[in-house]
Amino acid sequence: MDTPSDALARIRAFVSERLLDATLERDFITLPFREVQPRLDALRAEVKSLGLWAPQVPRSLGGLELPFLTFARVGEALGQSPFGHYVFNCQAPDSGNMELLHAHGSAAQKVQWLEPLARGDIRSCFAMTEPGHAGSNPVFMSSRAIRDGDDYVIDGHKWFTSGADGAAFTIIMVVTDPDAPPHARASQVIVPMDAPGVTRVRNISVMGHAGDGWPTHSEMRFDGVRVPVTNRIGDEGAGFALAQERLGPGRIHHGMRWLGICERAIDLSCRYAVSRELSPGHPLAEQQAVQHMLADSRAEVDAARLLVLDAAQQIDANGVHASRDAVSTLKFFVAGVLQRVLDRAIQVHGALGVTDDTPLAFWYRHERAARIYDGPDEVHKTVVAKRMLKAYGFGAR
Amino acid sequence: MDTPSDALARIRAFVSERLLDATLERDFITLPFREVQPRLDALRAEVKSLGLWAPQVPRSLGGLELPFLTFARVGEALGQSPFGHYVFNCQAPDSGNMELLHAHGSAAQKVQWLEPLARGDIRSCFAMTEPGHAGSNPVFMSSRAIRDGDDYVIDGHKWFTSGADGAAFTIIMVVTDPDAPPHARASQVIVPMDAPGVTRVRNISVMGHAGDGWPTHSEMRFDGVRVPVTNRIGDEGAGFALAQERLGPGRIHHGMRWLGICERAIDLSCRYAVSRELSPGHPLAEQQAVQHMLADSRAEVDAARLLVLDAAQQIDANGVHASRDAVSTLKFFVAGVLQRVLDRAIQVHGALGVTDDTPLAFWYRHERAARIYDGPDEVHKTVVAKRMLKAYGFGAR
Amino acid sequence: MDTPSDALARIRAFVSERLLDATLERDFITLPFREVQPRLDALRAEVKSLGLWAPQVPRSLGGLELPFLTFARVGEALGQSPFGHYVFNCQAPDSGNMELLHAHGSAAQKVQWLEPLARGDIRSCFAMTEPGHAGSNPVFMSSRAIRDGDDYVIDGHKWFTSGADGAAFTIIMVVTDPDAPPHARASQVIVPMDAPGVTRVRNISVMGHAGDGWPTHSEMRFDGVRVPVTNRIGDEGAGFALAQERLGPGRIHHGMRWLGICERAIDLSCRYAVSRELSPGHPLAEQQAVQHMLADSRAEVDAARLLVLDAAQQIDANGVHASRDAVSTLKFFVAGVLQRVLDRAIQVHGALGVTDDTPLAFWYRHERAARIYDGPDEVHKTVVAKRMLKAYGFGAR
Amino acid sequence: MDTPSDALARIRAFVSERLLDATLERDFITLPFREVQPRLDALRAEVKSLGLWAPQVPRSLGGLELPFLTFARVGEALGQSPFGHYVFNCQAPDSGNMELLHAHGSAAQKVQWLEPLARGDIRSCFAMTEPGHAGSNPVFMSSRAIRDGDDYVIDGHKWFTSGADGAAFTIIMVVTDPDAPPHARASQVIVPMDAPGVTRVRNISVMGHAGDGWPTHSEMRFDGVRVPVTNRIGDEGAGFALAQERLGPGRIHHGMRWLGICERAIDLSCRYAVSRELSPGHPLAEQQAVQHMLADSRAEVDAARLLVLDAAQQIDANGVHASRDAVSTLKFFVAGVLQRVLDRAIQVHGALGVTDDTPLAFWYRHERAARIYDGPDEVHKTVVAKRMLKAYGFGAR
Repeated sequence: MDTPSDALARIRAFVSERLLDATLERDFITLPFREVQPRLDALRAEVKSLGLWAPQVPRSLGGLELPFLTFARVGEALGQSPFGHYVFNCQAPDSGNMELLHAHGSAAQKVQWLEPLARGDIRSCFAMTEPGHAGSNPVFMSSRAIRDGDDYVIDGHKWFTSGADGAAFTIIMVVTDPDAPPHARASQVIVPMDAPGVTRVRNISVMGHAGDGWPTHSEMRFDGVRVPVTNRIGDEGAGFALAQERLGPGRIHHGMRWLGICERAIDLSCRYAVSRELSPGHPLAEQQAVQHMLADSRAEVDAARLLVLDAAQQIDANGVHASRDAVSTLKFFVAGVLQRVLDRAIQVHGALGVTDDTPLAFWYRHERAARIYDGPDEVHKTVVAKRMLKAYGFGAR
Repeated sequence: MDTPSDALARIRAFVSERLLDATLERDFITLPFREVQPRLDALRAEVKSLGLWAPQVPRSLGGLELPFLTFARVGEALGQSPFGHYVFNCQAPDSGNMELLHAHGSAAQKVQWLEPLARGDIRSCFAMTEPGHAGSNPVFMSSRAIRDGDDYVIDGHKWFTSGADGAAFTIIMVVTDPDAPPHARASQVIVPMDAPGVTRVRNISVMGHAGDGWPTHSEMRFDGVRVPVTNRIGDEGAGFALAQERLGPGRIHHGMRWLGICERAIDLSCRYAVSRELSPGHPLAEQQAVQHMLADSRAEVDAARLLVLDAAQQIDANGVHASRDAVSTLKFFVAGVLQRVLDRAIQVHGALGVTDDTPLAFWYRHERAARIYDGPDEVHKTVVAKRMLKAYGFGAR
Repeated sequence: MDTPSDALARIRAFVSERLLDATLERDFITLPFREVQPRLDALRAEVKSLGLWAPQVPRSLGGLELPFLTFARVGEALGQSPFGHYVFNCQAPDSGNMELLHAHGSAAQKVQWLEPLARGDIRSCFAMTEPGHAGSNPVFMSSRAIRDGDDYVIDGHKWFTSGADGAAFTIIMVVTDPDAPPHARASQVIVPMDAPGVTRVRNISVMGHAGDGWPTHSEMRFDGVRVPVTNRIGDEGAGFALAQERLGPGRIHHGMRWLGICERAIDLSCRYAVSRELSPGHPLAEQQAVQHMLADSRAEVDAARLLVLDAAQQIDANGVHASRDAVSTLKFFVAGVLQRVLDRAIQVHGALGVTDDTPLAFWYRHERAARIYDGPDEVHKTVVAKRMLKAYGFGAR
Repeated sequence: MDTPSDALARIRAFVSERLLDATLERDFITLPFREVQPRLDALRAEVKSLGLWAPQVPRSLGGLELPFLTFARVGEALGQSPFGHYVFNCQAPDSGNMELLHAHGSAAQKVQWLEPLARGDIRSCFAMTEPGHAGSNPVFMSSRAIRDGDDYVIDGHKWFTSGADGAAFTIIMVVTDPDAPPHARASQVIVPMDAPGVTRVRNISVMGHAGDGWPTHSEMRFDGVRVPVTNRIGDEGAGFALAQERLGPGRIHHGMRWLGICERAIDLSCRYAVSRELSPGHPLAEQQAVQHMLADSRAEVDAARLLVLDAAQQIDANGVHASRDAVSTLKFFVAGVLQRVLDRAIQVHGALGVTDDTPLAFWYRHERAARIYDGPDEVHKTVVAKRMLKAYGFGAR
């Protein structure tokens, strides 16, 4: 059995040798997902056979059960590939759903939903954001679950439900008690995607692509959807608390994945800079403007990584709640670094940078949302500042 | 007959009333061009019937022959729509090709190529950039035309040939005399797209889309393509001089189009900010962070417009060559403004901003190239700085 | 008699030939003002003898009465020197006080205060900002003038009263009717600096210097100061309206002066870049990082100038009130350009840039306040944004 | 005897309780150093009596001999005060001179120069930069030491010799063998300041102040200065190697000191934001623009601290040479953070921020040089980038 650092080393090697494949990357970016999925599934099988499957999942469920901090490093390695997390079965939103079900699911929920997820037999999604309500205000929500005997009857309208296309079930955030205090109004409930009344309205076209299968973001309607109350995860009214518990580590995972993207962008830029000639014998790498873009990216990425790992250590030592400022700080700081690093990498590549001959343009498009999803920059900055100011008496009235 | 300012007012009204159509915009962005083209062609017919067709084209060819400075203003109005220039038949690269043929084409070339272009019966393209050579160094080029009797035999490899898919002809930049001084080596030659040896290798997938028809960028091969020497535009060796003549006004047109995009982005942001509520009764517009993003965009766009118009006046008064610093300055300044304004508009829109429910994401993707095409920022900055320093004796050795 | 453009040309020549004097500049920056004043007064005499005195002042008062737009250009020329405006008697705050007295002063006020100001025989100041109240909220003010017969009795505490040290009188903004609507509470009143109860508490040490004479910012106390009601300028309650009238053109003058500073910073940078060698035969000007800093400054300054001149034209054509958005926009935009241009110039100069061997460090210190005085960036951005949003119905409740 | 962390805690407490004194700070900033020195020397005596003297100095010399990483933390604590390092006798350049003499001085040199330095009885300086040569190219130097029997005869011209005013000796970098390879040409030699031929030409006026005593930067001339060869530190030709050894840890110390400044700037900003009212009951802290400035500073400072500490750990584990990229990276990254954090703090403070009523303006002025001294940003970025690119074959020819 590997030590965590052995496992990390083997995963890194697999990424380098098997995933950073220009043809597969271009196909993943430009073809429908269903056309590429067989090749990705073959890689999944390979990962399983190498004993590297599901690095974040408990051993009892077939995973590597890597410590949180090691898995953070794994996330950076996988992030170098647009499909790294998928191939190792730690892609969002399934990874978060597995964590949630493992920690708070009932025995029956685990058998029915967690085990096949952990095996990679099914996929899942998480329906939280609503088109009519600002995602930045999570207590401002319309979707309702009304108790009717042993069932909930659910009505709601959600969007940006990632991975809904092809998912076996969703976990939906719904108001179960509109009269409770704001943070105790909602619950999380499992809804099979084939339940009557569940409609996937559309895969939302994002940055030019509606997509299909896993890499999608759907608009969903829930009209009188009836599920047993036993589909609720945790206590009634615990929806927000569970969401917070999920989002803390989730932002570490995003942060490390983003840094994997950044490292890849720097690597591609260096390769290109030394090989592209501006005139015979004069590579792009000689340009001071290029050099300084590389150095700025290097510095920002190194600083960002230390910030994410530091927050991860805080979570590991003190829990999510005590670490929430560190988590908010890294969220907006690293998302900003990601955007600037990708922008510089594209500029270094010139016209090639906007093509799909490298994955830079894919990330440039799809990670613009990094400054928006899981809380826009502005929300996290306000959170951090208010806590800073509270120490000086602000808002203490 | 309209005065120029009447024509401008009528064009602006047409854009507002007929082009800023959310359904058509979304379809243009998400469907194949050929599916949307009939609707665009119907709009073209409407424009013709209103007497607003081809505002930049001489009256003798069926256009409005608007003065250069008025047409700059028209370009901003049309830029508010992703297909505004197409509908008025002043889209790149056809517009530049028309200017070139009008100024330097032979009588026969005008009849054969310019007249149908001006009528909108055919499209054209311009093959300049080569994949193996940095576009930032225009004298570093491999494509060759070898004289053989009354013909040129052309061999070359080009990419980012915009609009090649469906074009009737291309104008190609080729080396005609490799032994001449660097800026006198190349010529511009008309090549019918159906000439033997012309291959459209692929539409390059750019920011996720290879596309079809007009909005494409192709890789092209020219293998022993034979065309009569009379297909050359202007003198042998005049290729660079003609390209320079084209690029000056071309950058004015890009600049004004970008400002149209910016104004639309600001308009969409204001609309959204007043209508989106963060909590009941509290629109996004109340957020100081949103307000300051709007004000920053307002200031930058107003400054940028004055800079473009000032350069246009210089060209109008003193010609392209005498105005080249002003042109370089606006190129990188306005491209930067465009990127920041779009970025802020997306941030104001939150998740909606990355979807294709507005044209913001389309522009965010496709105008990232604005800082690269027609000379990357770095090249223009170096040009401007060297001329500044030359006045102090730099490089005077 | 000169045409305006002749006068402008002669003023520019005088600045270049007589004011851009390295020794005098260094002495102005590093010595007490009183030690340098005789040399500046000699230059003032020279300016008078050349017929260039007080370019903004009416001919009837001994000035050139240049049109507003020409005077804007003059302001840029004078801004190249830290004491340019002083030498031509159009320095703040005297220039604004002269405008105010000319437009709204009584005949007696003009004889007593305006005429000697215009001749340069006395100096004056303007006491508005209060230490206990945010300058960004002008209706939040404590200083009071209570009517007592034909007198006002004034009590107040002011700071940042520029030029108070050595001034013959101040114009003070005081609340005359605390029960009036917020913008009708205050009046402007002339107070001789030698009136009993007027105390100049200190010259505030700003960026390391308390200074003496004209280039100072004082803290002032007014304790039971008695002045005749006839010292009021304009109507009772008109204080804010008069202040607004002053601030519009005042921001044009600041903007143009800042651009003069920018042009000087660019000029010094170019001179240094071509002369400083990094190794034998390799001047700093060869560095791409230096070139790009110069080009960025060039572009920003050119854009900023057009923005200021455009706002000036709006004021000229439509008045201050109708142009207030343009004025707010230029205020924060140009102040930002100024800070960046100076920062780049210092970086180009290396260690020399932080010394007082050039005026760059002086401006870097004293113009940091440009983003604060006459309304901080944040206030102007909010003003501009609210007006943008108002057009979409915001705040229309 | 304290553990390192006890010592750190006691030092932090001393800084908070004794050094963050508004009156002393203002006097330090606005009065001649000699007027404030008695108060600082009293604090030095207090530090000695508390057993906290010279935290970086070996116990054998009367210091605390704190581990490198603990001393880095101390540096941050002291950095909160403009005179923190001075009061603890670890101010530049004496601290670096003590390190150098301790590691490489002869026994006689230690008795004569190191011991009184460590006691705080004398001060010293380090003469390296030359006005005629770019500091960014350290092998480009004119100062010469010519061997004459058992003496060196030194001729040279230096500037930015910090602390020369009042120093007992300088260490001068001089070329001892102009024919050696570039990095083996120079040596470091001790020169008493009272040696014949040593002239302190002037204290250079920096950002408005020439100053006196310790906080100064002098221009120096050395004309036929004769010192015994035994005054050389280390081997002949070892000057650059010794300088490099000094600069690595020196940049850690600068970095941590800068972060102390940043923390103070944030602390002052928070205090001000909660106490300053924009209107009754509405503190500045409510402004989102202020909140976001605070959050941006918080994130940047936290990331920067991790970057400095990580480089310090690398030095501790692997030595200066192996850590030079990490050192270059932190140098430009943290200097940039410092400048932005101070700029934001001033903006939050409004007019107060540019006065000397807080130390913000002092740091704003004097730490602008942080992006220049010890290698300008541009040099460090180039160093980092070239090493990145070397891994891809760049410059391997």
